[in-house]
Amino acid sequence: MIYFDNAATTKPSRAAIKNAEKFIESDYFNPSALYRGGLSCAKEISVAREGILKNLGLSTAKYELVFTSCGTESDNVAIFCANKRGVFVTDKGEHSAVFKSFTELSARKFNTHFVGLNKDGSVNTDELFEFAKNNEVGFVSIVHVNNETGAVNDIRYIADTLKKINPAIIFHSDGVQAFGKIPFSFSENIDLYSISAHKVNGLKGVGALIKKRTLHLSPLIFGGGQEGGLRSGTENVFGIKVFEFAANEHYNTLRDDFDNVREINRFIRDNLDDSIFKILSGENASPYILSVSAKGLRGEVVMHALEDLGIIVGNGSACSSRNRYSRVLEACGYDKNILDGVIRISFSSENTIEEAKEFIVKINEIVKRLKGIMG
Amino acid sequence: MIYFDNAATTKPSRAAIKNAEKFIESDYFNPSALYRGGLSCAKEISVAREGILKNLGLSTAKYELVFTSCGTESDNVAIFCANKRGVFVTDKGEHSAVFKSFTELSARKFNTHFVGLNKDGSVNTDELFEFAKNNEVGFVSIVHVNNETGAVNDIRYIADTLKKINPAIIFHSDGVQAFGKIPFSFSENIDLYSISAHKVNGLKGVGALIKKRTLHLSPLIFGGGQEGGLRSGTENVFGIKVFEFAANEHYNTLRDDFDNVREINRFIRDNLDDSIFKILSGENASPYILSVSAKGLRGEVVMHALEDLGIIVGNGSACSSRNRYSRVLEACGYDKNILDGVIRISFSSENTIEEAKEFIVKINEIVKRLKGIMG
Repeated sequence: MIYFDNAATTKPSRAAIKNAEKFIESDYFNPSALYRGGLSCAKEISVAREGILKNLGLSTAKYELVFTSCGTESDNVAIFCANKRGVFVTDKGEHSAVFKSFTELSARKFNTHFVGLNKDGSVNTDELFEFAKNNEVGFVSIVHVNNETGAVNDIRYIADTLKKINPAIIFHSDGVQAFGKIPFSFSENIDLYSISAHKVNGLKGVGALIKKRTLHLSPLIFGGGQEGGLRSGTENVFGIKVFEFAANEHYNTLRDDFDNVREINRFIRDNLDDSIFKILSGENASPYILSVSAKGLRGEVVMHALEDLGIIVGNGSACSSRNRYSRVLEACGYDKNILDGVIRISFSSENTIEEAKEFIVKINEIVKRLKGIMG
Repeated sequence: MIYFDNAATTKPSRAAIKNAEKFIESDYFNPSALYRGGLSCAKEISVAREGILKNLGLSTAKYELVFTSCGTESDNVAIFCANKRGVFVTDKGEHSAVFKSFTELSARKFNTHFVGLNKDGSVNTDELFEFAKNNEVGFVSIVHVNNETGAVNDIRYIADTLKKINPAIIFHSDGVQAFGKIPFSFSENIDLYSISAHKVNGLKGVGALIKKRTLHLSPLIFGGGQEGGLRSGTENVFGIKVFEFAANEHYNTLRDDFDNVREINRFIRDNLDDSIFKILSGENASPYILSVSAKGLRGEVVMHALEDLGIIVGNGSACSSRNRYSRVLEACGYDKNILDGVIRISFSSENTIEEAKEFIVKINEIVKRLKGIMG
């Protein structure tokens, strides 16, 4: 099987699981327990917290990391629990975890505003800054890497500029498709940053929200007071340790993986039959995500045909797969003819150029055959 | 090691993990993906949903099960997302997941009321019914098995009686310490029921909220619309399947396990040195939880001394281990002398009478020695 749907989820790292196995085999204690086994589990969570922050060049002096159950929960906490004043601003390219939370904010009578996108899915920053200048903005959430097109928003520049316009703005970014993949240096103007384990070969069911210590956050989930009172519920020690180890693996080889995946991406871009395919991802997009449209075909049909050949790709965001057209790609300004044919090809550090070569032969052949059948 | 802190967390079942392993080894797809691998994962979640409901004698025609990240989240969803009218009523014996959520409701200016406890930790039902008769109650949450004393509240009788008083009341119960342990027949008057995987040899990071189909619930976490729109975030397929398998193991042998644990509990009750120990758990408590106090000693000291002998017990609820005295046992009416010495001995189906015998010899000896040192 060639697995090219890594933006939806990645294969859990065997090494990371092996290293964390003792937390389900023998050290399965509740980290809130006050005997040595419990205290030791609590300590292991702290180590994971520091390790993940360190990967991003952040110290625990200035930043906290709150473990959550997923990237979606992290986004929800950021959006619902950090700010009560002014306009909540986001963009039309957000993952549903942010987008639907903003829809909910609107339903709760908060003021919200959605900034438009450029053709490649990146945020129209002129529009964003203009809005921030002319409105009392309280909170801004801009995705780091767009999960459909791979467009990279320069969130460092965006956060710095927004804080110059209005230092009281709280800035959040959904970093789920960036963490462990994109070389990136954090800015002190980023107040909140969401990440997810299963996008970097960790397990489903674990995420984290990184926050500046100086920022006040209320909990979304109340109870035993775990995670410094910010996220109650018995900590998923095993999942947290797998996350730590998988993240470390990614950061140990981040540059090499990036170059390797860029080569794979480049090869596919250069060799897709351009009489059929239109490439939607921009040249500066994350190499991990390549969105293309097979003109005149339905993405779902191409996806299923590839599956029969042992190749797995996505059709748009798995999370929004219930809608016919991608809300995000519509916001990029594509017409229905293009929207119909979208598939998302997304990579991991484990993919190889050999897979890319096999993929190209098969996809070019299959779409030509499908075109023949359909036409 | 003799592990008698099973109310805090249990050892994950090797068989359940083995059976679910393919969901991290090969079938690690995103259940929202529309290709066969994704659809198959989505199907596996449905099977788990139905299986767990079936264990409680519930059909999917009348009940839904929403997978969450833990019992605490389930309790929070029940409390914050089902009701907006009338008084919110609970009792003083609740786990922090419910208790602190009610504190938050009060902070948000909702009307709340906390009913008192009997000496064994069970809810004073006269007081509860009297309050429901004289007030416009919208929501009631009563724990099924008290996590500190093991007191079993007859939630079937309570729910039925409350609905007779006022059919509009929404009734929720935190069943975390009851599910998979206590023989129990559900009532149609129970609208919401919280359960947790890691208390029945599943993994930390998975829980569920069972709800009547006719009850309207809003989401706590917004996003991709997973779990029928009620709980967004990529589903933890592996954790959910381990939960299903571990729950099935429990329900396959529920009666035998119950009798076995009752025998262990009885043996310990009968053989604890009664010149030192006061038993706090009532005779009708869940056999899985035995709360005792070593008069004149501190529970933490006893706990640590036992740990040095290879025996793990809890001191009160692990989740509230940050406070010196148990809020729940204080509400039962015990004075500081008793509260100081509390340890919680809690069992699983894997514990044996041989462990109980070894435990008795060691605990009676160690407390006598500690008494000597302290006195």
